[in-house]
Amino acid sequence: MKLIAIYGSSREKGNSELLTEQVLKEIPAERIYLREKNILPIVDKRHEAEGFSPVDDDYHEVITRVMEHDVIIFATPLYWYGMSGIMKNFIDRWSHSLRDDRYNFKEKMQGKKAYVIIAGGEQARIKGLPLVQQFQYIFDFMSMHFAGYMIGQGNKPGDVLQDDRAMSDAQYLNQQLKSMI
Amino acid sequence: MKLIAIYGSSREKGNSELLTEQVLKEIPAERIYLREKNILPIVDKRHEAEGFSPVDDDYHEVITRVMEHDVIIFATPLYWYGMSGIMKNFIDRWSHSLRDDRYNFKEKMQGKKAYVIIAGGEQARIKGLPLVQQFQYIFDFMSMHFAGYMIGQGNKPGDVLQDDRAMSDAQYLNQQLKSMI
Amino acid sequence: MKLIAIYGSSREKGNSELLTEQVLKEIPAERIYLREKNILPIVDKRHEAEGFSPVDDDYHEVITRVMEHDVIIFATPLYWYGMSGIMKNFIDRWSHSLRDDRYNFKEKMQGKKAYVIIAGGEQARIKGLPLVQQFQYIFDFMSMHFAGYMIGQGNKPGDVLQDDRAMSDAQYLNQQLKSMI
Amino acid sequence: MKLIAIYGSSREKGNSELLTEQVLKEIPAERIYLREKNILPIVDKRHEAEGFSPVDDDYHEVITRVMEHDVIIFATPLYWYGMSGIMKNFIDRWSHSLRDDRYNFKEKMQGKKAYVIIAGGEQARIKGLPLVQQFQYIFDFMSMHFAGYMIGQGNKPGDVLQDDRAMSDAQYLNQQLKSMI
Repeated sequence: MKLIAIYGSSREKGNSELLTEQVLKEIPAERIYLREKNILPIVDKRHEAEGFSPVDDDYHEVITRVMEHDVIIFATPLYWYGMSGIMKNFIDRWSHSLRDDRYNFKEKMQGKKAYVIIAGGEQARIKGLPLVQQFQYIFDFMSMHFAGYMIGQGNKPGDVLQDDRAMSDAQYLNQQLKSMI
Repeated sequence: MKLIAIYGSSREKGNSELLTEQVLKEIPAERIYLREKNILPIVDKRHEAEGFSPVDDDYHEVITRVMEHDVIIFATPLYWYGMSGIMKNFIDRWSHSLRDDRYNFKEKMQGKKAYVIIAGGEQARIKGLPLVQQFQYIFDFMSMHFAGYMIGQGNKPGDVLQDDRAMSDAQYLNQQLKSMI
Repeated sequence: MKLIAIYGSSREKGNSELLTEQVLKEIPAERIYLREKNILPIVDKRHEAEGFSPVDDDYHEVITRVMEHDVIIFATPLYWYGMSGIMKNFIDRWSHSLRDDRYNFKEKMQGKKAYVIIAGGEQARIKGLPLVQQFQYIFDFMSMHFAGYMIGQGNKPGDVLQDDRAMSDAQYLNQQLKSMI
Repeated sequence: MKLIAIYGSSREKGNSELLTEQVLKEIPAERIYLREKNILPIVDKRHEAEGFSPVDDDYHEVITRVMEHDVIIFATPLYWYGMSGIMKNFIDRWSHSLRDDRYNFKEKMQGKKAYVIIAGGEQARIKGLPLVQQFQYIFDFMSMHFAGYMIGQGNKPGDVLQDDRAMSDAQYLNQQLKSMI
């Protein structure tokens, strides 16, 4: 079981990252911080004769690393009740990968286990639910297994570590992941 | 009543744009195509001493134009069961505007009427619902009035014009908007 | 194409009924008013040795009539952001039917087209969405085809007839159903 | 802090009940089993001149006991992706209570803390989310505080006790409730 965490926050050591580090405690995992990568928005050419053009950015490197793992953790702050724009741009590009001969993208992704870790402000445990449903549709489409999610609450950096429910959930996920590796 | 449409598609004349043009038929409206703009992802500095730094891109121009209107139409393709990454990056930047002294952003936005027009593939009328809920939370937060939404279905460019339900909905919204201006 | 409408309202000529009558204008359809039927809550005996016991009420008659049709319209007021309790009790009983040798229930229901018509109060077009999602899960489970839904708004009896968007949607569904029969 | 749990299952010692008993371990709480009560469906007379008629069943006794408590736990199996019909009928009757001079219903309910405990089958942690959203709307309407929810998975009686995530969540809620009383 090889594990990778993809961080969608624009901020170093933000609440979603702190929360995910609790989940990953003592677990070997690769980490990708999308804010350090240059990933351009998709240009949708599904329906043009020439198809998608190669894009010169970090997407290829990132998706290649992702495909090498069995468990993928999507860690994102709840920005405006959704995943961050930089994480969304990353996922939007999957449409290109689905048509990229280098990848066998769908085959490679199917069956992978996915976890979603969200940190948001007030009422995030309710107002983050549409995002959980969106991820469900994404994973269904890719035939991935939605193995679990959790939502923590906190505004100022570090707040989430005071969210007892989130800490309890993180501890549970940590044990679950440990038992898998 | 001044009306502006914000297009989130990466593609010219994609289904979400075609659908929105049906809604806007014979209605004076400004249009912003986010794909033509350079809008960088947010860098969240809400909690840093120096605060947000000015960003050198097209965001300021776009949000200034948006604030001058009374009715805002958010037109987006359903990419991976959410709004497009470029539209999400645009909205993520609102967090900066909320703290930008130039704007009185929240005051200016509150009370504006918002419409959401989504075009997606198979089952979009169901699988687009989490996105509708997300927009509801966004508009609630901004004290905007969520005046209506519609979801069209279509894959290939132009398909949405064959979606009778979408055409019926578009005609209704067109008449509603006409009666307002 | 044989069509049946199941009415969940406790009230004669309530908004959900009025709305559905617009949808059914000039269309031959059977109608079942659940408020006139005695349908007891499920007693869950899936896991007991003796299995479900026969229940002496109107459920058998109702479900038998439903199974004879190709298109099923579920018309319900939005009571507390869900379907009415009497409609829920009716659907809960499906768990019994799934295990009732008389029926071949799942086989008979699969492939049927389902429509959902909801009438609710303020913001029903948003706050009714969890109910639409619930119906999607129900129809998925039964391999039924979720052919369409609409949500009207109105509080006092008859209000929904003043809801222009609902009237436009109803007219569209009416034409769609006419083209099917 | 006086605590009451309302059980919506039709089955004694079903998974939702077992789960809730974990949450309530060593905590003094009143319990109401709706399956033992006769609570009739609402007959909506909000808009009739004579108003609601008194109903001769157990509702009055139940709602009176509920109003005497500060924390209300709604424990329901996920039947067809919603709360059970008997719980829904109970909540539907609140529409009557809102207009019943004996009660000051809204005033009495506002500010109460509400918890929701759901037990369902496969994928309940995803497919139960529309029900969580429905409860949010219910509590918002009543100005109650939605203090927490949890979803356990299990099919056969007792299964939920093998759901490690649910047991972890239950333990957390148990500690939280203990700290409140």
